[in-house]
Amino acid sequence: MALPPVPHEFASSLRTSRIEALSDAVFGIVMTILVLEIPVPEIEHPTAQDIPRALLRLWPMFLGYFVSFIVLGMSWVAQHEQFHFVKRADQALLWMTMLFLMLIATVPFTTTLLGRYLDQQAVVVLYGAHLLAISLVHHATWRYATRNRRLVDPHIDLEDVKIHLRRSLATPVIYLIAIGLSFMSTVLSVVVYAFVPLVYGVLPSIYAKREGSRPRKS
Amino acid sequence: MALPPVPHEFASSLRTSRIEALSDAVFGIVMTILVLEIPVPEIEHPTAQDIPRALLRLWPMFLGYFVSFIVLGMSWVAQHEQFHFVKRADQALLWMTMLFLMLIATVPFTTTLLGRYLDQQAVVVLYGAHLLAISLVHHATWRYATRNRRLVDPHIDLEDVKIHLRRSLATPVIYLIAIGLSFMSTVLSVVVYAFVPLVYGVLPSIYAKREGSRPRKS
Amino acid sequence: MALPPVPHEFASSLRTSRIEALSDAVFGIVMTILVLEIPVPEIEHPTAQDIPRALLRLWPMFLGYFVSFIVLGMSWVAQHEQFHFVKRADQALLWMTMLFLMLIATVPFTTTLLGRYLDQQAVVVLYGAHLLAISLVHHATWRYATRNRRLVDPHIDLEDVKIHLRRSLATPVIYLIAIGLSFMSTVLSVVVYAFVPLVYGVLPSIYAKREGSRPRKS
Amino acid sequence: MALPPVPHEFASSLRTSRIEALSDAVFGIVMTILVLEIPVPEIEHPTAQDIPRALLRLWPMFLGYFVSFIVLGMSWVAQHEQFHFVKRADQALLWMTMLFLMLIATVPFTTTLLGRYLDQQAVVVLYGAHLLAISLVHHATWRYATRNRRLVDPHIDLEDVKIHLRRSLATPVIYLIAIGLSFMSTVLSVVVYAFVPLVYGVLPSIYAKREGSRPRKS
Repeated sequence: MALPPVPHEFASSLRTSRIEALSDAVFGIVMTILVLEIPVPEIEHPTAQDIPRALLRLWPMFLGYFVSFIVLGMSWVAQHEQFHFVKRADQALLWMTMLFLMLIATVPFTTTLLGRYLDQQAVVVLYGAHLLAISLVHHATWRYATRNRRLVDPHIDLEDVKIHLRRSLATPVIYLIAIGLSFMSTVLSVVVYAFVPLVYGVLPSIYAKREGSRPRKS
Repeated sequence: MALPPVPHEFASSLRTSRIEALSDAVFGIVMTILVLEIPVPEIEHPTAQDIPRALLRLWPMFLGYFVSFIVLGMSWVAQHEQFHFVKRADQALLWMTMLFLMLIATVPFTTTLLGRYLDQQAVVVLYGAHLLAISLVHHATWRYATRNRRLVDPHIDLEDVKIHLRRSLATPVIYLIAIGLSFMSTVLSVVVYAFVPLVYGVLPSIYAKREGSRPRKS
Repeated sequence: MALPPVPHEFASSLRTSRIEALSDAVFGIVMTILVLEIPVPEIEHPTAQDIPRALLRLWPMFLGYFVSFIVLGMSWVAQHEQFHFVKRADQALLWMTMLFLMLIATVPFTTTLLGRYLDQQAVVVLYGAHLLAISLVHHATWRYATRNRRLVDPHIDLEDVKIHLRRSLATPVIYLIAIGLSFMSTVLSVVVYAFVPLVYGVLPSIYAKREGSRPRKS
Repeated sequence: MALPPVPHEFASSLRTSRIEALSDAVFGIVMTILVLEIPVPEIEHPTAQDIPRALLRLWPMFLGYFVSFIVLGMSWVAQHEQFHFVKRADQALLWMTMLFLMLIATVPFTTTLLGRYLDQQAVVVLYGAHLLAISLVHHATWRYATRNRRLVDPHIDLEDVKIHLRRSLATPVIYLIAIGLSFMSTVLSVVVYAFVPLVYGVLPSIYAKREGSRPRKS
């Protein structure tokens, strides 16, 4: 069977706005169903202390939820910034985004695993590897989209591109270090997963804002 | 490792429209999955009365669902109004919104808890504290966004700002009172959670509309 | 405590586009989670016939799913058409929409109940009452929005308004009849729930299209 | 009861943008809840090997998830391309889209079935039939929308239309072959479901892009 050729217009018909809409739906759902995995205590005829105690015993689930929510928030912001620069989509970018969303959609699975077995190093390493994969796909997307200004604004500042590439490589490096830390303490490792990127990524940009809202180039 | 500086454009690249899209997804999902937590009765060979009776016994779950749906509706409207005035986003606003959405996303957990243990005061207080936290983050977002007209329209009416700040502070005050009421009756407390803000926030504005649709400044 | 007055701009700040976005999220989720309630058969070491047989035994669940999907589809289209005409929102319209969405969000509960107890008349009546409530809120929203052209285009054709009001009243009438039919046969009643509105609402409009795509007023 | 006539404006009031929004919500949710069906292992006092082993035993669930995610990704892209060309909606297109979305929404059911009974040929055939139905509805939608340029741009290139029709027919043909392969090996059949369309649909279009980004008509 001779297959018909692929028309060229296909690639250009992929509007980034609809990729963003799909992404927002996936992120919104993942952020919301994460909490469904935390089991609501079921106690018959509880005393006044039973339920607070049962909730406190769930702390590893809440920690896992909190860390994953922050990681998802950062990933959403990062993808958000990316699509501020990416002006066109082609099939490769689309499927890199699909891979990215598949990794985002599976966060509830590894988060539940983490909440149940926070003391198991294999689980903490797997969770870290999951976050590592998310950040590497994100970095690869930057690299693909900006190479020869393939899918970005043709007048984009090359200095900006370099900064984004280096920054998007910093997160996987932090995850690698955090995975290593799991040999010392699994809880420490999990805390580093969320808070080092947060501190590194968010605090300086608030600081940068305060320091001066002067545009760099003007 | 010397980390690269954060480019200034980052903050300005955060479009409020996409924050709203993520919020709509989260609210839509939470409103919908709330009902999944109500267990559909499973009875083998039921008589004609068995199922109506089993449904009636679920009334605390339905009350919890109803109260949470109204609270979510009010929160959605409140955030909706806020983003009518907020014209720009920075990293701090974004993470305040993330915290807001995290609190919204966890409503199904405390709602299920409430539906199961409506007679436990600790649970009713926890549910109230959850609503209190949502309303405080909402108030803090108003305060942050409007201070020195940071993220709002530079020509915004300062009188309007004051009204919004005071109004967004009234809801947490009501929640504090309702938490106090739980020492008298847990059901009363739950009813106050939903209906006082509704009566206070919605009825007067319908009234205001009827009274005259004349714009205040013209 | 003297509460501050409600500013007039509140009502006008409610953009219908965001109400539509929230509605689309709710409809999309309900349509999707409906299927989660159908239990996937769990059989250890099944023979070749076991799974097909187990699936066939699930037919009441599939019927319930199918009927609810069609009802949701019709409700979505109906709300879609409504917001084509509704140009502004006020607090009352917003809370009518919230009530509408709450009724939509609870469809999975009554659908699962229906799938489990298709032979119980009380369940079929409850399901019908649920659909009736949805269609009545929809009708009330038309009535509210169009009275004195309150929230619609001021140049709307009054003849169109009348047609919409009558049409949106036809669906509840059909549901009432179908509820009555449940005294004869519960399966018949369920089939009427979905297919009479479909046949009445969809077929004639396809026919109308074929007959001539001439605009009525030109 | 004389039913009022259906006004002509109904059909034209169906904006494709809102159909796309509903579709994005459905796809986003299905992609995300797919993973909820994979059971997170529950082991009390696990040894270091227990959890990795339990995860490895889940490989048929992960394969099913992966295949369904790719199929959903392809379906989303395909619908995306379709609505790039479809400029108007009528009731028939709307209900074809509803049928399409109903088939998409039920993917988690057949995927879970597949993950549990990957060795049962009946299940693999059912899953294939599900994918076949999705691709046939997609093809029928192209055929309906493009016949006499009914719902597409009146200046659309007829050569393009032919290519889309033939291409959208190639996928069902591949699914039919893959269903046949299930008589030899169920795993092979499942792999063909996802990867043949991927290789056929995605690789050539990347190739086409590299070969030259010259527009075909200029």
